Amino acid sequence: MKVGLDVGGTKTDAVAVDDAGAIAGRIRMATGWGPDAVTQTVVDAVRALGVEAGVDLSAVRSVGVGIPGQIEPGTGRVVHAVNLGVDELDLARMVTPQLRGVTPRLGLPVQVENDVKAAALGAHALHARNGSPAPGSMAYLNLGTGIAAGIVSDGVLWRGARGTAGEVGHISVDPNGPLCRCGQRGCIEAFAGGGAIAERWAQRSALPVRDVFDAADQGDPSARQLRAGLARGVAAAVRVLVLTADVDIVVLGGGVTALGERLMTDVAAELSASAEASPFMRSLHLTDRVELLPPGSPAAALGAALVGAEGDATHDAEEALVHG
Amino acid sequence: MKVGLDVGGTKTDAVAVDDAGAIAGRIRMATGWGPDAVTQTVVDAVRALGVEAGVDLSAVRSVGVGIPGQIEPGTGRVVHAVNLGVDELDLARMVTPQLRGVTPRLGLPVQVENDVKAAALGAHALHARNGSPAPGSMAYLNLGTGIAAGIVSDGVLWRGARGTAGEVGHISVDPNGPLCRCGQRGCIEAFAGGGAIAERWAQRSALPVRDVFDAADQGDPSARQLRAGLARGVAAAVRVLVLTADVDIVVLGGGVTALGERLMTDVAAELSASAEASPFMRSLHLTDRVELLPPGSPAAALGAALVGAEGDATHDAEEALVHG
Repeated sequence: MKVGLDVGGTKTDAVAVDDAGAIAGRIRMATGWGPDAVTQTVVDAVRALGVEAGVDLSAVRSVGVGIPGQIEPGTGRVVHAVNLGVDELDLARMVTPQLRGVTPRLGLPVQVENDVKAAALGAHALHARNGSPAPGSMAYLNLGTGIAAGIVSDGVLWRGARGTAGEVGHISVDPNGPLCRCGQRGCIEAFAGGGAIAERWAQRSALPVRDVFDAADQGDPSARQLRAGLARGVAAAVRVLVLTADVDIVVLGGGVTALGERLMTDVAAELSASAEASPFMRSLHLTDRVELLPPGSPAAALGAALVGAEGDATHDAEEALVHG
Repeated sequence: MKVGLDVGGTKTDAVAVDDAGAIAGRIRMATGWGPDAVTQTVVDAVRALGVEAGVDLSAVRSVGVGIPGQIEPGTGRVVHAVNLGVDELDLARMVTPQLRGVTPRLGLPVQVENDVKAAALGAHALHARNGSPAPGSMAYLNLGTGIAAGIVSDGVLWRGARGTAGEVGHISVDPNGPLCRCGQRGCIEAFAGGGAIAERWAQRSALPVRDVFDAADQGDPSARQLRAGLARGVAAAVRVLVLTADVDIVVLGGGVTALGERLMTDVAAELSASAEASPFMRSLHLTDRVELLPPGSPAAALGAALVGAEGDATHDAEEALVHG
């Protein structure tokens, strides 16, 4: 049994995955704010899997945590998880001793991964499980406040050299485009990031991107422009992922994909327009290669569990080394 | 001993690589035009390695060929090698029987790979050999008539799902940019491809890109615009490669890099300008991560030899299967 947690800006999704890869239990809870509360959330979520979802915590061999921040390679240290109020947190080291009160197993290995990378791994696993032919390679494109992707090839996460793999959100596709919070102009994220759209829409709303779609349907010119920019940015990200990493399919997920078919229709139209103009783009059949992660999918938490299991393998090897 | 050939539009570069990885012999010859002549060039080049460079052909265990075209995955079939007058050619199958008259070994395995992908593998091997710390991952960005890249991670070539890995030349970075031969507007190749620049310069010249640089130095406004576009396109390709595949370094090669430091200065200025505007881009230290392949480097032929050796391993396994 392995546990995986997706620690989001507001909610944490936790799953227990059995040895056959099936989800044996799942709970959701609010995420705390700041380093201590985030650490506590992780511990509480593992405990809740036992108490609320009836998972046998003594059978858990690893914990994986996906978190929206940069992870220092080879450590469990999180930096710049702004949406969680975390500037710096040695999450794996903080969580491990506290888990001793929750599970009987001493020194349960805890791995931490960027949430989008974890979701990519989980989306790949779910894809294979759904009976579809398992793609040789896949990109998971997360459309949230910001935009980033994770790339999985032959079931292995592409981690890259310095932690910027899949950071397609900050590729500029228009020198005259809107100013991005990163300082460049015309970044994919400046067109299609939920945060950037909300800021430019400038009307207080709980669901600003949905409002933009609704207002565009009613003919509001600035909403139409923002909505067109969203499709344009997503289509550009899809092209970048296919033309650079040559992934078989691109799976869209994240908060903005709650728009479902309304979003997909716009993106498909944008991809079709470039296929119309270019025989080369047409030969790529991009519209057939973009998929939507189903709403409520446990991809991120499942992927975190898979990352955690990598830690379990290392842990076993280390134990073997120490204990012979 | 393994042989590698880089079959270019005008010249073919052939090397023999010994078991320690050192280049034991090298020859260059003109490339023929059309399927039969290209096949003959490959056979002649292997023969010339023996006759002219004194390589012991009886010790050769594999032949690898890099060629500017699409290669059907898992076969030695070349399609659309326009610069060689080849629409379709089953190169491996055509070459194998003819090599029997050249080397004593029967059924020498012949592997074919796209030339840019082969060069990426070779550039990676040369980098490791030059005493520099071997990069964990590298992109080789070929600046020739067109623009494409090869990505190598942990010494392994990223082949992708459908043959478009590294096709960054056809990523659009400006919706109002020049029309690309692919039909889109503002492709990286439309800004920075040697062919696109020559076409827009529209003055007959053997070295159009060099002419553009010279004329720009003398203040010609259209030359200055083309020259700025070249730097802009190359810088965009570097950003795409780092932000998608997160390669440690990007090595520039291909015909246009004959401009050497003049090109590098322009590209560095362009990368510095975006670092100036964006703390995020600044954190990537891109100017330190771009390198120039030395002129006359055998990277592509060496890489082809490495690809050929992969075929040798498969061949050995198959022979073991057949002969027990």
